[in-house]
Amino acid sequence: MGVMRLGYVHVRVSDMGAAQHHYQEVLGLQRTDQRDGKVFFKGWDEWDHHSVVLEEGGAGLVKMAFKVEREEDLEELETRMAKFGVQLTRRHRNEEHAIGDAIEATLPSGHQVLLYHEAEVLGTSTGLLNPDPWPDGLLGIGVPRIDHLLVTAEDPHLFTRFFTEVLDFKISEKVVPELGSDQVLASWMFRSNTPHDIAVIPGPDAKLHHFAFYLEDWSSLLKAADVMSKTRTPIDVGPTRHGITRGETIYFFDPSGNRNEVFAGGYITYPDFPCITWTADQLGTGVFYHNRELNEAFTSVVS
Amino acid sequence: MGVMRLGYVHVRVSDMGAAQHHYQEVLGLQRTDQRDGKVFFKGWDEWDHHSVVLEEGGAGLVKMAFKVEREEDLEELETRMAKFGVQLTRRHRNEEHAIGDAIEATLPSGHQVLLYHEAEVLGTSTGLLNPDPWPDGLLGIGVPRIDHLLVTAEDPHLFTRFFTEVLDFKISEKVVPELGSDQVLASWMFRSNTPHDIAVIPGPDAKLHHFAFYLEDWSSLLKAADVMSKTRTPIDVGPTRHGITRGETIYFFDPSGNRNEVFAGGYITYPDFPCITWTADQLGTGVFYHNRELNEAFTSVVS
Amino acid sequence: MGVMRLGYVHVRVSDMGAAQHHYQEVLGLQRTDQRDGKVFFKGWDEWDHHSVVLEEGGAGLVKMAFKVEREEDLEELETRMAKFGVQLTRRHRNEEHAIGDAIEATLPSGHQVLLYHEAEVLGTSTGLLNPDPWPDGLLGIGVPRIDHLLVTAEDPHLFTRFFTEVLDFKISEKVVPELGSDQVLASWMFRSNTPHDIAVIPGPDAKLHHFAFYLEDWSSLLKAADVMSKTRTPIDVGPTRHGITRGETIYFFDPSGNRNEVFAGGYITYPDFPCITWTADQLGTGVFYHNRELNEAFTSVVS
Amino acid sequence: MGVMRLGYVHVRVSDMGAAQHHYQEVLGLQRTDQRDGKVFFKGWDEWDHHSVVLEEGGAGLVKMAFKVEREEDLEELETRMAKFGVQLTRRHRNEEHAIGDAIEATLPSGHQVLLYHEAEVLGTSTGLLNPDPWPDGLLGIGVPRIDHLLVTAEDPHLFTRFFTEVLDFKISEKVVPELGSDQVLASWMFRSNTPHDIAVIPGPDAKLHHFAFYLEDWSSLLKAADVMSKTRTPIDVGPTRHGITRGETIYFFDPSGNRNEVFAGGYITYPDFPCITWTADQLGTGVFYHNRELNEAFTSVVS
Repeated sequence: MGVMRLGYVHVRVSDMGAAQHHYQEVLGLQRTDQRDGKVFFKGWDEWDHHSVVLEEGGAGLVKMAFKVEREEDLEELETRMAKFGVQLTRRHRNEEHAIGDAIEATLPSGHQVLLYHEAEVLGTSTGLLNPDPWPDGLLGIGVPRIDHLLVTAEDPHLFTRFFTEVLDFKISEKVVPELGSDQVLASWMFRSNTPHDIAVIPGPDAKLHHFAFYLEDWSSLLKAADVMSKTRTPIDVGPTRHGITRGETIYFFDPSGNRNEVFAGGYITYPDFPCITWTADQLGTGVFYHNRELNEAFTSVVS
Repeated sequence: MGVMRLGYVHVRVSDMGAAQHHYQEVLGLQRTDQRDGKVFFKGWDEWDHHSVVLEEGGAGLVKMAFKVEREEDLEELETRMAKFGVQLTRRHRNEEHAIGDAIEATLPSGHQVLLYHEAEVLGTSTGLLNPDPWPDGLLGIGVPRIDHLLVTAEDPHLFTRFFTEVLDFKISEKVVPELGSDQVLASWMFRSNTPHDIAVIPGPDAKLHHFAFYLEDWSSLLKAADVMSKTRTPIDVGPTRHGITRGETIYFFDPSGNRNEVFAGGYITYPDFPCITWTADQLGTGVFYHNRELNEAFTSVVS
Repeated sequence: MGVMRLGYVHVRVSDMGAAQHHYQEVLGLQRTDQRDGKVFFKGWDEWDHHSVVLEEGGAGLVKMAFKVEREEDLEELETRMAKFGVQLTRRHRNEEHAIGDAIEATLPSGHQVLLYHEAEVLGTSTGLLNPDPWPDGLLGIGVPRIDHLLVTAEDPHLFTRFFTEVLDFKISEKVVPELGSDQVLASWMFRSNTPHDIAVIPGPDAKLHHFAFYLEDWSSLLKAADVMSKTRTPIDVGPTRHGITRGETIYFFDPSGNRNEVFAGGYITYPDFPCITWTADQLGTGVFYHNRELNEAFTSVVS
Repeated sequence: MGVMRLGYVHVRVSDMGAAQHHYQEVLGLQRTDQRDGKVFFKGWDEWDHHSVVLEEGGAGLVKMAFKVEREEDLEELETRMAKFGVQLTRRHRNEEHAIGDAIEATLPSGHQVLLYHEAEVLGTSTGLLNPDPWPDGLLGIGVPRIDHLLVTAEDPHLFTRFFTEVLDFKISEKVVPELGSDQVLASWMFRSNTPHDIAVIPGPDAKLHHFAFYLEDWSSLLKAADVMSKTRTPIDVGPTRHGITRGETIYFFDPSGNRNEVFAGGYITYPDFPCITWTADQLGTGVFYHNRELNEAFTSVVS
């Protein structure tokens, strides 16, 4: 009941041709549709119509969309969001292409969040009958699915309150200014059993830090990094490990400057997961466990 | 809301000394407690008091215990279980050691299922403050946590109905006698985002086929198999891959003849996961994807 | 000076179409040439004209060919082979297609061994100028190169004496009937720094047990096993680890019944490598480290 | 015949206690001996008395020592070295502790090179009788053996000529100022079948850039990087892949500022390996394949 997962990320790109090449031939997503200047993509292991939507117009996040488990969750969450004081708009079936009735919220941070229950189902590439574990003919990195996104907000504490109090996310890890503080400088939040479906760090409102695709393991990250070099895809950081989430990672950029991540590993969360705390002085280790320090660009470059 | 995960498995062993050596020094679980002839273990990445309980007396399953998200889930599920016609017993706080109020059901298949909401919390080995990704000093395979169990039942269809209709599990994969049949010969069911928290195959009632521990990836399985050889732990099958769940696996036995598994990989499920169907003629490939055939012992040996 | 490596293996196949499909699309070798009923293949990381030669006519080994470092090695080894009492034939340039002057020996075991110094050079797929680490467009398993072969002989001790005394191979590991015995029941021998370029076990004369292709690591073996299942290539044993050589392995069959192996890992040898001894009672563990036992078919099925 | 391998590296350290902790508990080498202010170490898979020698006195290379295959190689190489104009000193048995008769050369670059044939044999940790593939009880990263070293020289071309013309090394890869140039700016050279036993890049004479230990695969590098973070061992670069050698790598520093590397993968060389050429403009990609650029510190910091 409630939010199941990050359904899709809708971002702006400055050159649709270059962007399509990146998401299709470097990441290996499947282009599933095109309409009204938007191009739709899904990973081979996803069944819904899309998990990434691109539209021309620079860079940055148009909206993030979460899929809820039951039709009636929409109404209940609408009431809760209204009570939190969030500005809401109803989206009728197919107003968002291939998506059912939906509610769109403008958060205090300026981010657009869409909640929906229904999506057109295209099916995975391995199918539903006696399937193989992976399909032939994948391009580039061949990511199976989207995993999470990370955004910046001027008030990460308020952003975290919205996702936990209204949308019932749990916090897996948080950064506090010092031990014992109630102030949340950054948080990693989950509804699924992954370490995070969304995370927030301090920064300008309405901005995207990165969105991430899932990879099976550390070995897949090596191949991914090799593909990035072959295709001249600029790597930001990695391959390395996060302290926070314990996951393995490569950060890189799409041709418009939107930061992507491929993410593997990480622990399993449950609603009773005991929240992990990082003190601000250890944040470097939290983000990049091997080098134990943040570089300036990593925190300042957003889209 | 409802069942969060497989909380623990309680099994009988014929020689407690040998069993402790196996679960502690081969699997690398931590022995957390001992009381009334029972010995309690948890993985290093688990926070609750135990995920495995051993007691002397041969081999086989005493009970499987699932943890529910909210206190009030117990009452609601009790009502539903009663309506399904299952025989129920209330267990008061600490009747099950280190566990809160609970309800125990005897399924039509003769399996004992315990539902509980509260457990004593011991914490993970890496802690909650600026943690490292893994602890030092692990023994043997060093499994982080329990993952799932598989049982046999004379009527797997009925067993599946109980878990899906009463406990709200979803079916990730099922075996049918032939395409189009409504009859479920075997099923893999989840409440978490893993491919399965419990599964059932045809066989004698009240029996255990295996219970499984999670490993990070295929590389960890190689080390696990090496440790099994070093410790003369008899391997049943593997390392190999499952067709069903797509996971990587080694089956092996504890000294009492209870089958264990170490399991890695597998896809991510959500409540809208489209159920995969295997036809009975492809079951060999479904269980052992590489060899594409079942051996007789695998389906007949249970405890 | 002397033998550098196993240059190529020349085997018989019963159905050239099926065989080509296997070596090209399952193993991912490159078909480099065809002449006089023979088809030639090389791995993407090999530079010489071929490492596998197929010809129609059942199954089994036509000859194994070793490349020597210097032209003058041929003459010196010819003298030594003659002194050992081996029957020799000179092969003039291109009598063996794309191969320079060569000497062919018929061993006491009936195996044909060819020594050559020169081969037509085709180059690797990644090239010699600012290369990428791996090429795009590989098919199937995508093996980079041949690694070793294992044959059977009625007198493995004599076979071992030929390779060590005449061709200057060193023994990395040997099986003896009991501790202290001078009798070699089986041996693994090297000229390169790999654990073995050739090995011999007891069995019928003039027979092939298997020839092996190199894979980078244990992760590559999982993909290889998946490809075998997808292509219905019958797996004999594995993925598993050898005790002898410490390497990771999958045995499987080509459509004609010649056993292949993909082999990863293993230690590095040098001429002063201290020979490892296995007693016959531990041979099961030596061959299959995880299961610690040999199956009957593994030792009896040869081609 | 001739040089078999890099036998050992003898370096200066500024604090022997900190250095011992690093080589023993972080790298996991075994401390085998101590004498005359020197401390001796070997990897668990090495059989000779030592592969690393430490002595107090700052940082940097005292000497690199290569083991030759035959006693008579010493005399032959002595003659050749003298002819090349290199200054030579004979070292009698045990003048170098646990080493037989030896010849020490002072290269034009100021580096000391020792050639020896005999070393005290201690044996590997897994032994010579029915061995397991790896020993229990390894500390930290648990490196099995030394792999290669890289030094700087003001005239890398001359350095390369010494190793190839006198010591019969082959060049696997070289950097040239531009295509077609005969000038070697940097070279990677081998006597074994690894991509390199020694390499040279431009820089100050008599200096050490790094020495490297072998690791089995990319998965082992992740554990190594984790151990470095846990032990606060400063990582220089990695985990990543080299374009040159195709190997996977982490660079890091010992407490005295000597750069170490753990190195996995890489192709197999043979004496007929076709030399790979890198043009100077692609050197960034050659050294760090993923990021495709060199950082200033990497080329300027030596010891």
